[in-house]
Amino acid sequence: LKISDMGEFGMIAELREMLRGRGEAVLLPPGDDAAVFQAPGGALMAFTTDAMVEGVHFDPSYVSWHSLGYKALAVNISDLAAMGGSPPSFALVVLGLSPQTEGGDVRRLYEGMIDCADEFSCSIAGGDIVGSPRVFVSVSLTGALLEGRFLTRSGARPGQSVMVTGTLGDSALGMRWLMQGGGGNNPCAKKFLYPQPRLSLGRRALQMGAVAAIDISDGLLRDLGHICEESGVAARIFADNIPLSAAARATAQELHEDPLAAALSGGEDYELLLVAEKNDAVGMRAEIELTAIGETVEGSGVTVLDAAGRAIELKKTGYDHFKEA
Amino acid sequence: LKISDMGEFGMIAELREMLRGRGEAVLLPPGDDAAVFQAPGGALMAFTTDAMVEGVHFDPSYVSWHSLGYKALAVNISDLAAMGGSPPSFALVVLGLSPQTEGGDVRRLYEGMIDCADEFSCSIAGGDIVGSPRVFVSVSLTGALLEGRFLTRSGARPGQSVMVTGTLGDSALGMRWLMQGGGGNNPCAKKFLYPQPRLSLGRRALQMGAVAAIDISDGLLRDLGHICEESGVAARIFADNIPLSAAARATAQELHEDPLAAALSGGEDYELLLVAEKNDAVGMRAEIELTAIGETVEGSGVTVLDAAGRAIELKKTGYDHFKEA
Repeated sequence: LKISDMGEFGMIAELREMLRGRGEAVLLPPGDDAAVFQAPGGALMAFTTDAMVEGVHFDPSYVSWHSLGYKALAVNISDLAAMGGSPPSFALVVLGLSPQTEGGDVRRLYEGMIDCADEFSCSIAGGDIVGSPRVFVSVSLTGALLEGRFLTRSGARPGQSVMVTGTLGDSALGMRWLMQGGGGNNPCAKKFLYPQPRLSLGRRALQMGAVAAIDISDGLLRDLGHICEESGVAARIFADNIPLSAAARATAQELHEDPLAAALSGGEDYELLLVAEKNDAVGMRAEIELTAIGETVEGSGVTVLDAAGRAIELKKTGYDHFKEA
Repeated sequence: LKISDMGEFGMIAELREMLRGRGEAVLLPPGDDAAVFQAPGGALMAFTTDAMVEGVHFDPSYVSWHSLGYKALAVNISDLAAMGGSPPSFALVVLGLSPQTEGGDVRRLYEGMIDCADEFSCSIAGGDIVGSPRVFVSVSLTGALLEGRFLTRSGARPGQSVMVTGTLGDSALGMRWLMQGGGGNNPCAKKFLYPQPRLSLGRRALQMGAVAAIDISDGLLRDLGHICEESGVAARIFADNIPLSAAARATAQELHEDPLAAALSGGEDYELLLVAEKNDAVGMRAEIELTAIGETVEGSGVTVLDAAGRAIELKKTGYDHFKEA
């Protein structure tokens, strides 16, 4: 059976099964935003890795080397944020470069990565360059969980509030904008090129009672689906409550796209999706820029409701077409 | 300027320069076997990463998927060993897979990695699969430095003893053996496919007074050259003292190769190259299987001396031809 037949997720599930029950020293098994282990002395550390491959995860025709470097680090810091982790963090970088790669491009990639590191108190501790027919950037990152506990995908229970930071859909619309030749000054394009991991918000949410979290990298529906699956709950969210920015609405209009579709399925927003008891959620929203978009219930799966409380059929409405983005 | 014009080492040097002086939280700047940072609570952690790319670092025609997985983890553990680090360690794995990759091959790769993890008390904490036109394996690893200090490439001073663990050249000869269709039961082939990182020896050497270390991945001459450069010393080693295994001698004979050339320039042995004060070196050799091969002196560069004490001209003798291996 080839990967193309099994699917990437099928393969990942099998490999996770192989690792299950091994390594008691790992406090959180594979499958969450980051792994967690305990350093000598007792500190809890989150540990995560992510790779971006040319032609698969980025297209140099509309992603600059500077933003590629920035983003490659930012998506790892976002995983730390989703655990309720804290700066400082430490990153290692492996660059796969072809002999034809321009040295100046690699320097700009590093400049972008250093800019992101400076903004989020991350130290780029080193790395390596390897030869590769296709450019790739592989970053691994570790950072402390200073609360002595952490947020997982599996902590949600029925009857809790589902919330998101910021606005959704901007990044996917920004990517479409750039693909169609639009400039990088569009706020949506900026969010696609320079996502802002919610590092301080994640920890604050943990302090204020959040019980589950994930960063929105695959799109709201998929990532909320991950929380539901790992927690053994269902979720219903209200389409009208999903936060859309003015820029997303304007860009969607210019592109003849539906901003709600982008928000539900677009991905790469790197906002945090948080779950908390409804009582705690009120206090959190008073302090953190958070939008309540729905609630967890008994069952499984994610339902999107319209203003009249009717379930929206996602496939029929084309909300799915952003998934290929 | 393209990477092919600057050279990989030229590019790495430039990127290191960009990182210099940043991230005070990093206790050992980029350029050693691993980075070092301090976890909350004070524990020192080594942090390292390495990637293997199909067609560049391995050839599936003579490297099995099982050994690829084993080796991809082992070379990272070897970096931890070269710092004087300790188990348990924690690893993350990114696999770049093409849609044509067979699921069974990926499982065997993971089995090899798990076998290595079990032998060296490493926990594979998780990872990811990404699409890639060419298969790659990128591993990052962190482990504690329980001595509260660590071995670097820069700690050598003139007048000290230069020593190595195990025997050298086996791995390079084993690779040639496999390339020419030889079987994997040859001890040299085994060492190439399943290198044994010297994790416990590294820490013991640190306890007993070693002042500098590197793992031999690029070949004795190059790796000793790294120590000389980073420490600001020269080294002279005695060709007759370089430890060659019976298997290396026999395999070299069958291949019509010079085993000494393989030992000097072959690489991938993943033995430790250690430097210590001559007094301490005596005690270390009494307890650890170590061979004294030479000494550090004032100056720069590495000289190889024959039995009569004459410098061997390495280029003329063809000792260099293993470098391309």
